[in-house]
Order: sequence, then C-alpha cells, then structure tokens
Amino acid sequence: MVKVLDKGSVELIDFVGGDQTVADTARISTMTSGTEQEDRKLVKYLIKMDHGTPFEHSYFTFYIKCPIFVARQWFRHRISSYNEMSMRYVMPDREYYVPSNLNDEEERKYKEAIENAFNVYDELLGTDVKKEQARGVLPVGMYTQFYWTINARALMNFLNLRLDRSAQFEIREYAKAMLLIFREQMPATGDAFLLKMKGELNAPHQPKEFPDIEE
Amino acid sequence: MVKVLDKGSVELIDFVGGDQTVADTARISTMTSGTEQEDRKLVKYLIKMDHGTPFEHSYFTFYIKCPIFVARQWFRHRISSYNEMSMRYVMPDREYYVPSNLNDEEERKYKEAIENAFNVYDELLGTDVKKEQARGVLPVGMYTQFYWTINARALMNFLNLRLDRSAQFEIREYAKAMLLIFREQMPATGDAFLLKMKGELNAPHQPKEFPDIEE
Amino acid sequence: MVKVLDKGSVELIDFVGGDQTVADTARISTMTSGTEQEDRKLVKYLIKMDHGTPFEHSYFTFYIKCPIFVARQWFRHRISSYNEMSMRYVMPDREYYVPSNLNDEEERKYKEAIENAFNVYDELLGTDVKKEQARGVLPVGMYTQFYWTINARALMNFLNLRLDRSAQFEIREYAKAMLLIFREQMPATGDAFLLKMKGELNAPHQPKEFPDIEE
Amino acid sequence: MVKVLDKGSVELIDFVGGDQTVADTARISTMTSGTEQEDRKLVKYLIKMDHGTPFEHSYFTFYIKCPIFVARQWFRHRISSYNEMSMRYVMPDREYYVPSNLNDEEERKYKEAIENAFNVYDELLGTDVKKEQARGVLPVGMYTQFYWTINARALMNFLNLRLDRSAQFEIREYAKAMLLIFREQMPATGDAFLLKMKGELNAPHQPKEFPDIEE
Repeated sequence: MVKVLDKGSVELIDFVGGDQTVADTARISTMTSGTEQEDRKLVKYLIKMDHGTPFEHSYFTFYIKCPIFVARQWFRHRISSYNEMSMRYVMPDREYYVPSNLNDEEERKYKEAIENAFNVYDELLGTDVKKEQARGVLPVGMYTQFYWTINARALMNFLNLRLDRSAQFEIREYAKAMLLIFREQMPATGDAFLLKMKGELNAPHQPKEFPDIEE
Repeated sequence: MVKVLDKGSVELIDFVGGDQTVADTARISTMTSGTEQEDRKLVKYLIKMDHGTPFEHSYFTFYIKCPIFVARQWFRHRISSYNEMSMRYVMPDREYYVPSNLNDEEERKYKEAIENAFNVYDELLGTDVKKEQARGVLPVGMYTQFYWTINARALMNFLNLRLDRSAQFEIREYAKAMLLIFREQMPATGDAFLLKMKGELNAPHQPKEFPDIEE
Repeated sequence: MVKVLDKGSVELIDFVGGDQTVADTARISTMTSGTEQEDRKLVKYLIKMDHGTPFEHSYFTFYIKCPIFVARQWFRHRISSYNEMSMRYVMPDREYYVPSNLNDEEERKYKEAIENAFNVYDELLGTDVKKEQARGVLPVGMYTQFYWTINARALMNFLNLRLDRSAQFEIREYAKAMLLIFREQMPATGDAFLLKMKGELNAPHQPKEFPDIEE
Repeated sequence: MVKVLDKGSVELIDFVGGDQTVADTARISTMTSGTEQEDRKLVKYLIKMDHGTPFEHSYFTFYIKCPIFVARQWFRHRISSYNEMSMRYVMPDREYYVPSNLNDEEERKYKEAIENAFNVYDELLGTDVKKEQARGVLPVGMYTQFYWTINARALMNFLNLRLDRSAQFEIREYAKAMLLIFREQMPATGDAFLLKMKGELNAPHQPKEFPDIEE
C-alpha cells in the first residue's frame, strides 16, 4: 500500500497479464514468436507507435482512498470499473483532506468549517433526516474509498493526463503512486512508457493520404 | 427547460435520430422496409425483446444543473459524454440544494453550515489559497452544471435505474424530467419503454442451450 | 482447451478475480463484510437483481479459433479486447469449417468451392498480388484466431445472447464451451447465472416512479 | 453519397452538433463565452492539445457499403454503433470487390473463383441448407452494408489510423471519403485536424511529474 496525501492511499489488490502478455497478443497478428529480448524490443516499439490493443489484456485492480474532489476527476475516466463506498448507506468517518500548504490561520478556518459541517451532519442524523440527504452539508474534501479495475492501456492514458503538470497537485500524487506500482508489474512496458512521457520515444510523423481536393 | 428540485434544471440542447431511425437501422439486418404502422410495431418489439443496437443511433444532448451528490451518481454512467463546470477555474455561485422535507430547525442548521463553508471559502480565496484547494470545504449539496450527450439505448438504461423507487429521491426527479423530454422526441420508443418499465411488455422466457454437463 | 466445431477451440489463457472479488467489491458500498455463505448468497442476489458492476473486476483471457463468419458475430461485442491474426501478413492454413449436417453431395460441392478459392489465392500470391488483396477470394468459412479479454459482466451478456436458441448454431457451440470454463472459475456466479438463464432467478418487478403526466 | 472502390459508397444519413457545439461544451469548464473568431481559435487549440471530450457531442450517422474484409477492419473500432445486413436472413446480391490493379489473367481467375463460390451457394440454398451455413463458401471480398454512428472524437481517431499510409489501400479509400464529409459538417474542426495529421499542429512536449524514485 502506498500512502498518498495526508490520509489517502493506493493499494494493488490484483493484477493479471504483464509484459509477456503484451508481446504474445501483439504477435498473433503476424503469427510469429520472439526471444525475450525481441519481446522487450517489441513492447517498446508498440509504446512508441501508440499501438494500444496489446496492452488491453493486462488488468490492475486498485483500492483507492482519496478526497471526493479527487474522485470526481478520477471518475471521468470511463474505460474502467468502479465500486465505491456509498454515503447513502455509510456514515463516513470524520476524515478529510487538509492541504499541507495552508498557513496556520488558513488551516484553522478550513478545519473549523469542515468540523462544523460534520457536527451539523451528526445532529441532522440525530433527528429524522436520512443519511443521503444530510450529507448535503459534507465537504468535497472528505475522503471516499473505491475499487478500481483498469487495463494497462487505459491506465497509461490516465497516467499521461494525471502526471501532467497541468493536472491538479492532489490527483498527481495518486498518479505518481500508481506509476510505481505499474512499473513493478510491467517493467518493460513501464520503462518504455516513461521514455514516451519524457518525450524521448516519439513516433516519427506518420504520412497520411488525403482526398484529391486537399492537394 | 424543465425545472428540477429547488434550483436545478434539465434542458434539451440537441437531438438527432428518432423512432424512424430505430426502425430503419433495425430493418437493415433483413433488408426490408415497412409501413409507418409496421415500424411502430417493430419499435415495440425491439423494446420488448431488449434488442438494443437500433436505439444507439439516436442522440440527446442535455444541459443539466444538479447538486454535486446527484452528479456523483450520474457520472457513474459511462456510456455517454460529459463536459462540466470546473471548480478549479470557476468560483461557484452560492447555490446549493436544500431538501424540502427538513423542518425549520433542521433547515436553519443545514443552511448555516453551508453558508459558513462558503464564507470560509471566500476568505481563503482572499488570501493566497487556490480555488482548487479552497473548494475542499464546499459541500456536496452545492450545484454544478454539465453537458451530457447520450444515446437512446443508454438513456433508457439510465432511466430504468434512476426511476426505480430504490434510487435516491433527488436523482429520480431528474430522471422524471428526462423521461418527459425523451417521450416528446421518440414517442413510439417512449411508449414502449414505459410499458416495459411498468412490467407490461416482458419478453417471454428465451430458451437457452446448455453444454451436455448441465443436463 | 475445449474443442469446438470441426477444427475450432476455446482456451483459457488467464483469469483474475472470482466469486470472492464479486462479494468484496459489492460490499464496499455498505462497508460491511460477510461469511463465506453470506458472500455466496450475495453473489446470487446480485445476479438476480442485475447489479452488474461487481462482476467487472473479474477478467478472462481466451484464445479462440473459429470460422470468420462466427468471428464477425463475436466482434460485435464491444466491451472487450481483441487481438487477431491478420491476413494482411499471414498466409492462412487451408483450414475451413465444414458443417456436419451437409449430405455427401452438398459437402463435396462446399469443399470444392473452397478448395478452388484457396487454389486461386495461392496462384495470385505466386504473381505480384499482395496477400491483403488476394484474400478477397477466401471464404468466410475459413478459420481465424484471436485473443479475447472480457470481464465477467460482459461475458455473461455474451453468453446470455449466444446461448439463446435464436443464436446461430455455430456460435452457440463456442458459448457452451465458454460457459463450462466460466463456471469452473466462478462457481457461485456461474450457478446463479445458470438459474437466471433458466428463468428460475427472476428479479421481482421493480416499481418505478413516473412524472405526474403519466398518472 | 460518395462512391468508393468499384461498387462501394459512403453516405451521410444524419448529423448533430458541429464546431459551435465543440466550443460551447469546452467553455463550460471555465463558464466563459467567446466571439466566433475566438471559438474557432479554441477549436484549433483543443485539437492541438488533444482535448477530446468537447468533440464527443457531435455525431455522424453514415450508411456504408464495403467489402467484408474492409468491414472486418472497421468493426474493430468499438466506440461507435453498428447495424449491419445479416447473411443469416438476406441472400446477398452477387456483388464483390475486384481490385483494379489485377492484370487480366489475375482478374479472370479472381472472378471465376468468386462466381464459382456464388454458384455453389445458390445450389446449396436450392437443397435444404440454411443461408447462415451455405454462406461459409462466400468470399470476404463480397460487399456488405451497415449503418454506423460515431462521434467526432472517435471519428478523428478512425481517420487518423485509416488515412495512414500503413493502413490497407481499400479502407483508406473509405477514410478519404469520410474526411470530405467530416470537413463539410465541421469545417473549423476539420481544418485543425488536417493540420494535426500533416504534423503542423503538434502539442509542445507536456512536462510530467514523476515519483522521487525516478529522479
């Protein structure tokens, strides 16, 4: 389990496939086989050329704990599977994210507003209000938990977008944790992917053919 | 535009396809054509038998305004397209959902907690805290806005799940608004779908064939 | 490896997840745990009520050998991953499907037409014609091979459609082979699914809520 | 309708969305609006930076007539909807693709093999053989027909892959026909996409952030 932010984490629950599966499934198109070294080279070539389908036979299942506002960005990734804790049924722990870059005064106010919201939530539950409605007061900074299953192709797409410096700091921290796990499970793929992200494994410009009207 | 809850809404922005498209695309498998009445009957048959693909050529684009906790349930539907207001860039209006079934005391506390959170949010923005971090205090009851594009097959799946009495009241209200719009655009499909949901258009049990070991 | 038709087969290459994963991922919504017996009951309940997402964390990778016309039906299933032998690069073996219900005269003609096509294919390759064009003469009855990775939810959808007596005999044979493999890997899920397909595990009618206009 | 190959075609049946929809749906993230010129610039920027979701609200429905071996490549594109003529129910016209680059002798043999296959198919139907089985002898060069509905993002992905000089000539011809139609419906998007494909609108390298272990 990799710790992330102040109270979050990423845990690899299950994995299937791997570098060899990438090579095997890619080679079916030509019905050839290769040595271990050739397979490694093939994996690199597939990453370079953006040939994605051979990476779809490897699957990761993660258990994630992250703030709701991070989960909101996360769940935009549609080619993957989610099962999440539901605040319709679960009374959440009083766990919420506190950014580490707030000064003392900011942190005090931030925490006070959230503690106050949790207090009101508890009071509302004490009367006749349902969990699913009382939660309206709870902050997007509180932690949620979910299972996430995704194939290596879609995971690389996630990492590419969420390791980007334009992505929000908080989700970038989760992407970094997952990159570590990803590379452990698929070292050849991970190495090639890292080169690609660093701009050191670019596909050459692929010449296209256009209709006559374009010429 | 259909008003939903206290400050939300559903608006149909664009639509393509329709009942005739359903019949046309279904008929290509047999390369036949039919009268208007036969097409209507065909649409009903397709709904009855759960033949889904002919409904995938009709698309709805909606503009939705709903509480974040409703949006969180909504975005679990992956076979559709979303573009949403981002609180990384936008300072949201102080608009939030207040359940109508709270008593005065509950409502006062509920509002106070949320107003307090917005006050702290404003204060944090007044110092050096970024919108994307300060929002940690904002409640899941606040309103968000998004474009949503979905085909008729996936929309019927959404409606079937979200009109269910086990779905949360708030998202059911949105589903009801969309059912009205859906039926206006695709009356034959909508009528058949309604019968189906009422349990009056069930497919007969489809006999299956099992491996020998089962017998 | 399970033999199918005259020269085809289905082989399980890899699997991840299983009945326990179904229960674990389902239980996160309520943050509860259960005994083995309760988990088994839960799996059955999820199948009964069509709650699909907990089945999306279990993945099967198959190696399939089947006639092209069967593969054409197969590849309509979009929520899964394929890597297939390409006749742009591979000169196929002279392997083709011969239905077992043809009489001698029919079988003779059927084989002759196909053998003739393969002969012409070989001749065309002997001149300057490319594989990818010469294949235009080859029959949809010839065998192809592919890797197929699919989650348990989508696999059950495939089986439900392809075990149906209205499905073509040939693909039904493949579905039957996969049902055996599916049940071996996920016995609790497989048992419940079988009951469901036999019409013995139907969800009760789920009451829906409709807009006022409907009443 | 655009003619393609010797007997094929691409026809635009329906369209919804367009350049303005791209700009509108993109702008919701910042809740801003722009002039027509700014919107055009925005569309170009989105293409440049590979921001795909705003292109998912525009949909094309095509009617396609192409050889089966082309359709086989086509149907690998999963993020789109298909309804196709079925040779389980339809006795196909004797229409098949003849490559224009065959010499007379090659063309004669090619046609003879296929005509022979169709003759045997007709004879088999004359006895008690079902269409769905007799078709085993029919060639992958014969024409099929289908409806295809796809959003602009997925269509650009299709075009990018299928206009590539490494794609097979025959499907490239279809991609070229669709590029023309695409640009007519979405001129600003189409212009930017063309620049991108020509290598004249590349995103600058996006700096990523890596875990400590990488440094």
